[in-house]
Amino acid sequence: MKERVCIIGQSGGPTVAINATLAGVIKAAKENGYTKVYGMIHGIEGFLENTITELDVLYEENRLEQLINTPAMYLGSCRFKLDTEDNHTKQAIIDMLISLHITDMFYIGGNDSMDTVYQLSMYATKNKYQINFIGIPKTIDNDLEGTYYTPGYPSACQYVGTTMLEISYDSKIYPEPSVTIVEIMGRDAGWLTASTALLNAKEKLVDLIYLPEVVFNIDTFVQEVKKVMSTKHHVLIAVSEGIKDETGSYLAISKGGKLDAFGHYSRSGCAQYLKQYLSSKIDSKIKTIELNIMQRCSGHLSNKMDLENSICFGEAAVHFALKNATGIMVGAKVEDNKIKFIDSKINLVANKVKPFPKEWIDEKNCQIRKAYLDYMIPIMGQKGNIGFPKYLRREVG
Amino acid sequence: MKERVCIIGQSGGPTVAINATLAGVIKAAKENGYTKVYGMIHGIEGFLENTITELDVLYEENRLEQLINTPAMYLGSCRFKLDTEDNHTKQAIIDMLISLHITDMFYIGGNDSMDTVYQLSMYATKNKYQINFIGIPKTIDNDLEGTYYTPGYPSACQYVGTTMLEISYDSKIYPEPSVTIVEIMGRDAGWLTASTALLNAKEKLVDLIYLPEVVFNIDTFVQEVKKVMSTKHHVLIAVSEGIKDETGSYLAISKGGKLDAFGHYSRSGCAQYLKQYLSSKIDSKIKTIELNIMQRCSGHLSNKMDLENSICFGEAAVHFALKNATGIMVGAKVEDNKIKFIDSKINLVANKVKPFPKEWIDEKNCQIRKAYLDYMIPIMGQKGNIGFPKYLRREVG
Repeated sequence: MKERVCIIGQSGGPTVAINATLAGVIKAAKENGYTKVYGMIHGIEGFLENTITELDVLYEENRLEQLINTPAMYLGSCRFKLDTEDNHTKQAIIDMLISLHITDMFYIGGNDSMDTVYQLSMYATKNKYQINFIGIPKTIDNDLEGTYYTPGYPSACQYVGTTMLEISYDSKIYPEPSVTIVEIMGRDAGWLTASTALLNAKEKLVDLIYLPEVVFNIDTFVQEVKKVMSTKHHVLIAVSEGIKDETGSYLAISKGGKLDAFGHYSRSGCAQYLKQYLSSKIDSKIKTIELNIMQRCSGHLSNKMDLENSICFGEAAVHFALKNATGIMVGAKVEDNKIKFIDSKINLVANKVKPFPKEWIDEKNCQIRKAYLDYMIPIMGQKGNIGFPKYLRREVG
Repeated sequence: MKERVCIIGQSGGPTVAINATLAGVIKAAKENGYTKVYGMIHGIEGFLENTITELDVLYEENRLEQLINTPAMYLGSCRFKLDTEDNHTKQAIIDMLISLHITDMFYIGGNDSMDTVYQLSMYATKNKYQINFIGIPKTIDNDLEGTYYTPGYPSACQYVGTTMLEISYDSKIYPEPSVTIVEIMGRDAGWLTASTALLNAKEKLVDLIYLPEVVFNIDTFVQEVKKVMSTKHHVLIAVSEGIKDETGSYLAISKGGKLDAFGHYSRSGCAQYLKQYLSSKIDSKIKTIELNIMQRCSGHLSNKMDLENSICFGEAAVHFALKNATGIMVGAKVEDNKIKFIDSKINLVANKVKPFPKEWIDEKNCQIRKAYLDYMIPIMGQKGNIGFPKYLRREVG
């Protein structure tokens, strides 16, 4: 068997499970005789500046368990976009990989990062370099093609569900009517916002749920709030940061948003915008809450099954590499309610967004259908609000 | 022994430990032969509308353990202010208490709620009504006189510390310089913001800490941020919502804040204001995070010692009532590093604010001195960052 050396990078936004995947790769690589396991500091961007580290030590010093439970990104991240035409940079990366005797490069990231893997694998294959490029998915957004779900999403759901449950308790304490609008991450897809429906299995705690997949009409929204208020004192609303109006414009920016340095619009503040509009239409206290980066970094609320599976994604990547697979992303499929790992063609994943299925949205009632709850069972280990804290609620009043 | 009947109310803002105190009162009352334990729904305001409930059932059905671990307020809350001159309302309350054969009224709340207890106890004593009025403290703000600390504060510190730790990991992932400003509750006192210093015992995770107790100068602030940025890529700042400029005006409202329905200024958004000012002075990504109501309702991050002591506060209140104390608030004092309970004169507590001690503030470095860490040991059961998650950090890079 030829000597194997690998390098691992992390890229894009953090999740609380991405380090578990890193640990899975390190563990499987060491157990399968890799002589060296390198890490890129700050992904491809840092690698191009030669900032690398040796990861074997984490295995040898038994620190993988702590790594698994550490949120954010141990190796640091980047938002690097490899230009399709830029063969100079591709060659520079290949040259550096060769100088380190790398046989396999693993890149843990979202759809942008999978494009990097795709382009490098194409370039290497075309030019006959014997290096395997393998992508491993992660994102709290759950919007990657080629896999049943993405690691990191179930933990983000664990955070969002637990926090929304606690907010629902807090929002009901005063006798005066109130509206609470909670803004949840999800630029292009509503998966994370939809997860608030997990709380609604027994009683409707989250009254209205708005995803980017449904055109948002602000006057319809006012009517829907008023309808809930006709039967309840306290209204709890989950809204995705990515909701768009009938012209396809993000709600908050269509009213004065700005491009950020990366050419992305800043969508933060749609809850604030809804509050301002609503306050002129109803006579009630309105509170807004942004769950902000806590959605992606709250390691203390990771989902156990998510961490376990995230490790397996990393291990599966090494097993595919040992078979000299390249240009693939490790995907998950479900068989008999259990996760199995597959090699998804990476060009079917790169730069694509998997939206929340329209047929799972009960648009009329601003709710999510049961099919979604069923979908969650194999990846979150729970149904309905099982897995969230069991608090005591006063029956009437 | 005369037959005893009590009623309990909760008032003001929630904490995750206030239901533990409620459970402590119920348990001690039932164990000491109270024939009936009532609860006011929505505090005095609801009581005046005759919305009461019977709490004995929670004891009989073994639901106190679940109540202890439930955040927010089981009985609901109010923001009722009893007018000093309004003897009509006082008499109405007394009449209702008499009609229920109440011997002891327990009111769990902050400094406003203690004023209600104070006034009712004065009125009852003056008019020779044999009813005891006993206050029990709670507030995440820790700003009550007459007690070493207030129940609920250690749990809020557990939330703020854990979350700030996780934010510090998230804020460091990209190579580009960044400033993260976290806005923390505390309208009049900086206790909760100061608790971020618990993370700094081993290494400085929180670079700059701003409390309302120190005059805030925005240009000095810019200089302080620049100074940190000269040695670090990523700056993490904890700022109290209640910081005030040299004229004593709250920072955010001095630039366009509004009075709310209760005549309070809305101070939300001082982090946002700082971001806007700072962005014209430095060339770096600036992120703001409001910890919002999660600070006071995150039951999943309660502090164990806080819950245990909060129960004892409730039990102590019953023991004081059995000695026919009235016009008191249950206070804590520390002896040999242990909490003991005292009867504090309620007029020394009502409407007063205990600021964070000036001598514990290292104003020059925007840090908190060790005396505060020592102060926390008996109430939080930990020193430095013991009690917070132990995550793995890459040494260099």
